[in-house]
Amino acid sequence: MRRLIYLDNAASTWPKPPGIADAVKEAITDYGANPGRGSHQLAARAEQTIANTRNRLSQLLGVRDPSNLLFCLNTTHAINLALKGLLREGDHIILTGWEHNAVSRPVEWLKHQLHIEATLISTAENEEWAGRVKQEIRSNTRLIVTIHGSNVTGNTLPIVDIGEVARKHRIYYLVDGAQTTGLLPINLNQLPIDMFAFPGHKSLFGPQGTGGLYVSPHVPLEPIIQGGTGSRSEKLDHPADRPLGFESGTPNTPGIAGLGAGVDFLLKTGVETVYQHEMKLINQLWEGLARIEGINLLSPAPPDLPILSFNIKDVDGIEVAAILDQHYQIAVRAGFHCAALAHQSLGTDNRGAVRVSPGYFNTQKEMEQFLQAIRDISQVF
Amino acid sequence: MRRLIYLDNAASTWPKPPGIADAVKEAITDYGANPGRGSHQLAARAEQTIANTRNRLSQLLGVRDPSNLLFCLNTTHAINLALKGLLREGDHIILTGWEHNAVSRPVEWLKHQLHIEATLISTAENEEWAGRVKQEIRSNTRLIVTIHGSNVTGNTLPIVDIGEVARKHRIYYLVDGAQTTGLLPINLNQLPIDMFAFPGHKSLFGPQGTGGLYVSPHVPLEPIIQGGTGSRSEKLDHPADRPLGFESGTPNTPGIAGLGAGVDFLLKTGVETVYQHEMKLINQLWEGLARIEGINLLSPAPPDLPILSFNIKDVDGIEVAAILDQHYQIAVRAGFHCAALAHQSLGTDNRGAVRVSPGYFNTQKEMEQFLQAIRDISQVF
Repeated sequence: MRRLIYLDNAASTWPKPPGIADAVKEAITDYGANPGRGSHQLAARAEQTIANTRNRLSQLLGVRDPSNLLFCLNTTHAINLALKGLLREGDHIILTGWEHNAVSRPVEWLKHQLHIEATLISTAENEEWAGRVKQEIRSNTRLIVTIHGSNVTGNTLPIVDIGEVARKHRIYYLVDGAQTTGLLPINLNQLPIDMFAFPGHKSLFGPQGTGGLYVSPHVPLEPIIQGGTGSRSEKLDHPADRPLGFESGTPNTPGIAGLGAGVDFLLKTGVETVYQHEMKLINQLWEGLARIEGINLLSPAPPDLPILSFNIKDVDGIEVAAILDQHYQIAVRAGFHCAALAHQSLGTDNRGAVRVSPGYFNTQKEMEQFLQAIRDISQVF
Repeated sequence: MRRLIYLDNAASTWPKPPGIADAVKEAITDYGANPGRGSHQLAARAEQTIANTRNRLSQLLGVRDPSNLLFCLNTTHAINLALKGLLREGDHIILTGWEHNAVSRPVEWLKHQLHIEATLISTAENEEWAGRVKQEIRSNTRLIVTIHGSNVTGNTLPIVDIGEVARKHRIYYLVDGAQTTGLLPINLNQLPIDMFAFPGHKSLFGPQGTGGLYVSPHVPLEPIIQGGTGSRSEKLDHPADRPLGFESGTPNTPGIAGLGAGVDFLLKTGVETVYQHEMKLINQLWEGLARIEGINLLSPAPPDLPILSFNIKDVDGIEVAAILDQHYQIAVRAGFHCAALAHQSLGTDNRGAVRVSPGYFNTQKEMEQFLQAIRDISQVF
């Protein structure tokens, strides 16, 4: 059987670097206790593991005080926390036409439940984003939220420009870093960003079930889940201390241990090295696809991230993905990629697209195999 | 070095049975993709793994339609979902003086934020619980929530009696099964319970980062986290379908794989066998402690579950736990156990207590070692 060519890294990176799965296994086997400094040695070791991951991740992302890095189940939970922990009735927010459902759906909910006003902006040219944001600012604008890099087109938004507009107008800025964390250099201490949501299981190379939210010290964020925090346990009122007040209940210590190993790999390998390799592959794909007749690339130029989407003539993307999977052992993802807004922006909301996202462990030879498969399929239809 | 005696199983069971950590590792190594049937073979395998765990857990807990079992990060998230997904402004709820902070803290939040009215009940005798509940029912009582078994005293509440009162008055009943799931026989299809929250990492023998909520088909529960669900991705409105609408974002597939292995172990070993072994140990502990002078047991009779708490004279529990850890290699948990209400009910809200909770892999010899350590310590003070 031919080896599987996995090109769905924008969903979860796979395979993981050596050591990730073992770090998770070790956490379960060697110290599977609840964290807590004052209790016993296993609890202390669990707590130390979580602190280590928090510290190393802070190092990678330029977070000065690791207490402001809050662990969550995934990016979706992190974004829900950022939106619902900050916004109050009557607030206005600005978001873009490129947001993932992890942003657009809680925003819809907030519109209905809390009478939040939301303005959706779009623009054809990247340079205009900051200007477009500026135009939509109102007296009650409390938050701007944008995706950093699209999970459909692989293009990035100019977060520094947008953040500077936000800062100038004293509006909070939340960035969805699902596709960029670990891939692009991010220094949260220097960027004009107030909150930054990230996944553990994508370019940080951690296991699924991990992710988090960076919250700048000055943001008056409230927890959205209350419960046991292992701190001030004798009090009925839930503490809003960071990080514990935002991480109620038993944490996913094994997952966080694995995330720490992923961050270690990245710190050792270098973000730039990973990015360069993946961009070499995506450029090869983009150029190869652009030469095949009948291919409709959703991005008119090579993307900023190792992600691209396309359609073959009028062929259903789900069918293309199924053929690639069954006949070529190639894993891609078709459909809407949990991004209703992005497909509306692209005019593909009636059919979706086929998304390809190579990872650090893919090779140029595999890209050529993928391109050959697409040539074959497009000739059949 | 003497082998560690782990008596903190009420926090997390440890060690896990053979196979749990390997199931987690295998999920990361062999099929670390995002679930989704229509995409590719790795995604299909991830989805199948989650479905398998849901099915086996449904078998264990007597859930007729597995779609009503929703996976969460932990029991705290499950309880927050149950409370906030159901209660609306003006509703009244009844809870007991034995609740964990995972119940009492979100209830405090709901009182402040949504003007929920809450009545806290207590009683000296178990037989009176249903009657006490009945007394407090109002025209706007929407929910009764009780813990199944206390994480401090190891005593259970008569959930069938309480549930029958709830059912008769058409009030929803939520049970916090953190300390009983996997230990006591639970058939949710037959019990008068509408929602049941449970941890994966305690007596179900799964890894941390897992847990869930059973929701009866007739409960009009709304999701509290919106985002990508892998379903209806082209729609901006978040779907409330079960289970996917309640499991937004990338799930913890490795953790859920491990939970499935834990449930397998339990189905094979038998809930009754595990319970009998652990009760033999806790009875040995209770009787041994009752004979030591200066020991104040918080429960006046042997508990219903393998959990008990005590204090040694006026000695600080944290100090006792530290001595046990450092000098005897025995792991217990001191303090308030995230249960402010329970310690208020016990009159120990000024000092907390030392909690001991043996597990399936502990032995009678280890119980004797623990008792000897307590005899030593109590003689010193």
